[in-house]
Amino acid sequence: MKTLKDLFLDSLADIYDAEHRMTDTLPKLAEAASSDDLREAFENHLEETEGHIKKVERVFAAFKEKPRRKTCEATKGLLKEGDEMAEEFEGSAALDAALISAAQKVEHYEIATYGCLATWAGLLGNEDAQAILHEILSEEEAADETLNDIATSESNEEAMNENPMAV
Amino acid sequence: MKTLKDLFLDSLADIYDAEHRMTDTLPKLAEAASSDDLREAFENHLEETEGHIKKVERVFAAFKEKPRRKTCEATKGLLKEGDEMAEEFEGSAALDAALISAAQKVEHYEIATYGCLATWAGLLGNEDAQAILHEILSEEEAADETLNDIATSESNEEAMNENPMAV
Repeated sequence: MKTLKDLFLDSLADIYDAEHRMTDTLPKLAEAASSDDLREAFENHLEETEGHIKKVERVFAAFKEKPRRKTCEATKGLLKEGDEMAEEFEGSAALDAALISAAQKVEHYEIATYGCLATWAGLLGNEDAQAILHEILSEEEAADETLNDIATSESNEEAMNENPMAV
Repeated sequence: MKTLKDLFLDSLADIYDAEHRMTDTLPKLAEAASSDDLREAFENHLEETEGHIKKVERVFAAFKEKPRRKTCEATKGLLKEGDEMAEEFEGSAALDAALISAAQKVEHYEIATYGCLATWAGLLGNEDAQAILHEILSEEEAADETLNDIATSESNEEAMNENPMAV
């Protein structure tokens, strides 16, 4: 019979895979971005994501487990969709809006997952793991907020200006 | 060349499909749930989701467009994963925790999508559409919060009690 700890470790292996996939994709997103602000946001988030990989390894260690990856189909699918959007909107003023939207979907997948992991670590009585997971969660929420700010400012305004009679 | 309005309408068709898929899945989640609180939360969210379908139709109308569905691969994949988890954790005290986690991933996909849609409706100068999208966004955030509350209370406590030496 599967237990809460099994669920926890499976989800941890899933997000460990997702973070690795993000480190492969963020440089591509940064390269595709047209605005400097957005490129910089993706570059900063790449550094954070590399940090999250180390932190997730510390969570595995807090449970006396070796880090393992389990293919995260959700992130894989979302990133594929993002790739297709980047291609579809190449050269369009709405490109940055499309890239932001793709990145925010992955951010929110991570927010949902780290939220559950932090709750479960607490219920399993592992306060060290819970504290690390809360740290990562806060950084993912801040990254999402940064993308929100950029979405409401330059990149989308450009898209609107290109197409002022859009409605 | 694709515009911000194209991106907006594509995303609207994607979330319109996602909401339909959720109305098919929520009764199954309610049936699978072991705790009364969780079953009730899924039932309430089904009613809200039916309301979201009508609201998204009003957003299409605000853009003088007919409602259309575009297969939402992300929601399709997340719901499939949820199904597999429900099967894997059947009879386990961690079942509700697994169901909550699956539902929260879809909620967060919707939160990311409605957030972008509301921003874009504003940039496209359609305040009526923006107001409706903000309404839906608030309801999705509240639904996620309700699941958080349940996750930290009974369902997971049961899971922990079944396995007090889990760590």
